[in-house]
Amino acid sequence: MTGKLYIVGVGPGHHDHMTFRAKEAIEESDTIVGYETYVNLVQDLIEGKTVYRYAMTQEVERARQCIDLAKSGKIVSLVSSGDPGIYGMAGLIYETLAEAGWSPKDGLQVEIIPGVSALNSCASIIGSPLMTDFAVLSMSDLLVPWEIIEKRVEAAAQGDFVIVIYNPASKKRIHQLQDTRKILLKYRSPLTPVAIIKGAFRESQTVVLTDLKSLPEHSDKLGMISTVIIGNSSTYTYENLMVNPRGYKSKYSLKQADVKSNP
Amino acid sequence: MTGKLYIVGVGPGHHDHMTFRAKEAIEESDTIVGYETYVNLVQDLIEGKTVYRYAMTQEVERARQCIDLAKSGKIVSLVSSGDPGIYGMAGLIYETLAEAGWSPKDGLQVEIIPGVSALNSCASIIGSPLMTDFAVLSMSDLLVPWEIIEKRVEAAAQGDFVIVIYNPASKKRIHQLQDTRKILLKYRSPLTPVAIIKGAFRESQTVVLTDLKSLPEHSDKLGMISTVIIGNSSTYTYENLMVNPRGYKSKYSLKQADVKSNP
Repeated sequence: MTGKLYIVGVGPGHHDHMTFRAKEAIEESDTIVGYETYVNLVQDLIEGKTVYRYAMTQEVERARQCIDLAKSGKIVSLVSSGDPGIYGMAGLIYETLAEAGWSPKDGLQVEIIPGVSALNSCASIIGSPLMTDFAVLSMSDLLVPWEIIEKRVEAAAQGDFVIVIYNPASKKRIHQLQDTRKILLKYRSPLTPVAIIKGAFRESQTVVLTDLKSLPEHSDKLGMISTVIIGNSSTYTYENLMVNPRGYKSKYSLKQADVKSNP
Repeated sequence: MTGKLYIVGVGPGHHDHMTFRAKEAIEESDTIVGYETYVNLVQDLIEGKTVYRYAMTQEVERARQCIDLAKSGKIVSLVSSGDPGIYGMAGLIYETLAEAGWSPKDGLQVEIIPGVSALNSCASIIGSPLMTDFAVLSMSDLLVPWEIIEKRVEAAAQGDFVIVIYNPASKKRIHQLQDTRKILLKYRSPLTPVAIIKGAFRESQTVVLTDLKSLPEHSDKLGMISTVIIGNSSTYTYENLMVNPRGYKSKYSLKQADVKSNP
């Protein structure tokens, strides 16, 4: 007897930005598994269901349990904030399934339900920073050696990518963003716009728009629910927004008169 | 008299993956503007509203018109597929507003509504390719010189980023992905997994899982609604899925017995 396993991204933590498919999957499930903070985000949808709440850093056990429950016939939603396909639980689920020799033909159905990730939500809050090519980096070196991440920062700087940083810092993990800033300052102006968005779309949301030079003044805004967006050579700020142009000005005038005559 | 301007991402084109906020904004609007293919995606939500459908490549006129309509008191939704904050209309709206000296205090309210972009939806369909740092690149050199894009491909290759490619090719734009492949082959194995997802979550969806060596055999799957995901040195395939491990194996065994004893 086999059930279903949904890996559900509920978005930035406000139901407004959850997808219909995410809600539907949670409602269809009899069993909910997740890090307790994420489970709390969907508390109103899970009344009457069997709920397993986990503490942080128990990801391997969580993946194993979800698979076991689904194999026993349960319809299970493993919930997470954002998009489980971006630094999320999707990978560990498939790794664990692969290790166990799973095949999609076996009967255990797995569906990853994508969501609005921090890169999507934070960009929308701060303006339009992702109109050009960008690199997404996690500063967490718990599972990836710092030397590899550092090399990627250097590469992203050389390629003039806009950079989105997940997990910029924690109480114990401080130097990584500081080192990243130093590398970027070799390639970018100290006035390069930097946004720190903390708790996007939650009640506690705070937004800081600063620059590479002044970033260290805002270390109190960094943490596990913060995202940092660093502009590239084209990024500018306007009215507390971070704007990256997609080159239209090189081809068109954006002034009203010209547009009306012949865009 | 001033209205509101919503820049709405409706996700990959299937209502399931639209957010509640996107639907709400469209329903609240009296005026809908958008590229006709995108407007058709939400046909059932816009009965009775004033609808302006645009052909491709009229982005500047579209942005201007939305702003004019909102300034005249309309509640306007500029709709697009995916996330308007990723290579989308958010940038052109803010650029045009900045050019006109707009201030958020003027009364014209602008809200970017993020959505499930191609990077989110395509990753969820093909497995878990985005568990590690990744670079997002558009192959369109209509507004960005090819030399800049080429330099970024080189940087992304050097940084061992997983790479997500938007707009990989069009009928007239063929060489860019071919050149990208050649650059990547200087750094990556010909067996590096590559996925081409066309029309994600639409009825016409097709998925090809291939590798860098064989990519040219699948050029018929490239086009304006295709996304290409190229693995890095850690990416592997399993049962037609593309999996990127997040280093758990280096710290934990994923086998059931070990997990049960002490995860």
